[in-house]
Amino acid sequence: MRILAALFPGFTALDLIGPTNCWALMPDVQIQLAALREGPVKSDFGAEIIATHDLSNCVQDPDVLLMPGGGRGVFEVMQDDRFLDHVARIGAQARWVTSVCTGSLILGKAGLLRGYKAACYWYCREQLRKFGAEPIDERVVIDRNRATGGGVTAGIDFALQMIGTWAGPAAGQQAELAIEYAPRPPFGTGRPESAPPEIVDAVNAILSREMPSDLIDRAAMRRGGGRGA
Amino acid sequence: MRILAALFPGFTALDLIGPTNCWALMPDVQIQLAALREGPVKSDFGAEIIATHDLSNCVQDPDVLLMPGGGRGVFEVMQDDRFLDHVARIGAQARWVTSVCTGSLILGKAGLLRGYKAACYWYCREQLRKFGAEPIDERVVIDRNRATGGGVTAGIDFALQMIGTWAGPAAGQQAELAIEYAPRPPFGTGRPESAPPEIVDAVNAILSREMPSDLIDRAAMRRGGGRGA
Repeated sequence: MRILAALFPGFTALDLIGPTNCWALMPDVQIQLAALREGPVKSDFGAEIIATHDLSNCVQDPDVLLMPGGGRGVFEVMQDDRFLDHVARIGAQARWVTSVCTGSLILGKAGLLRGYKAACYWYCREQLRKFGAEPIDERVVIDRNRATGGGVTAGIDFALQMIGTWAGPAAGQQAELAIEYAPRPPFGTGRPESAPPEIVDAVNAILSREMPSDLIDRAAMRRGGGRGA
Repeated sequence: MRILAALFPGFTALDLIGPTNCWALMPDVQIQLAALREGPVKSDFGAEIIATHDLSNCVQDPDVLLMPGGGRGVFEVMQDDRFLDHVARIGAQARWVTSVCTGSLILGKAGLLRGYKAACYWYCREQLRKFGAEPIDERVVIDRNRATGGGVTAGIDFALQMIGTWAGPAAGQQAELAIEYAPRPPFGTGRPESAPPEIVDAVNAILSREMPSDLIDRAAMRRGGGRGA
């Protein structure tokens, strides 16, 4: 099982590490982290994770392509045709094309979600329509060989479910025990539908600065990039 | 808020990234990642994360010391007095001493949990007694200024709860929404008590190779190391 994760400046570290740390529990797994250039890639909060390959010398036909999401970095990389061209090429040859959080917007911009149902971070979910994808309000969405997780922590639910699909339910059950995944969210505010309005307003205010709508629109509307919007 | 995470070869990446990616959502946070030497540190599944500081040039009196756990790497670093001495010194000057997963065993070996209640990864929880700590079967355990999370994914529950403690409940609620933390474990087998016996047996068999009891005992019984066992 050859897994390739594509990194870019500002990716959300937990979107990457949640799924890959889970998938590493499967037998015979090889995980490559690739970016435009080999070397350290700065994640959203500053932690640097090393890309062991660049996107032209990594595995070109992985069993799984994983695209993490992020905040502002996502909308910046959606302006970068070099990155998007790599994603489009590798995605076309991957057995599974997957993402966590706003990573589905990058897959969309690379032309990989046209006509597919997909998950996304709640704040940006409707933006998927601009790339011909159908946004679904679920933590994990599987449509043919596209498997997408919702925002950030949904990557863990997504990863475990995919272990079940790829390696069988017993492997999924074992992985869930191995990572002691019996979550107890302390506040119960993990979805806008379950959070008090003033909490949603406060987070919306932060996200509107981090993910400004003009940056989203510019990325969505721009022609070109991978197989294009 | 100055947060210091201590890295060592073989640490579990998700133990580090779960909490730090959450804590970065608090205002005015500075996060340092430190190891015996600056530079890339290989995590349990191979991903390399960069230590921006070494343990002597990082902040020496952080508001929060975070110790991630791991598998075999934990029991190896528990043999390394240089690492343990740094942890003991910094821990004594930190406002909060915290860990995720088997990280509490390292804190214990550094003499920082004697007389404290603490959480740990389910497989190793009882080992805490060897360091004078009282193991508690909870996802998050707070005893005075020691705050410890259970296995791997408990780091997210732990981190959110601590945001509530440090920055107030509204900040915790906002963080939970920002990371879309409304988990849906696909199998319900995240604790040995909730998993079928054959799944527990299979994971025990894997962990007994990854965390062999002689390595655990050797680390626990050895004299010296930080303020010692």
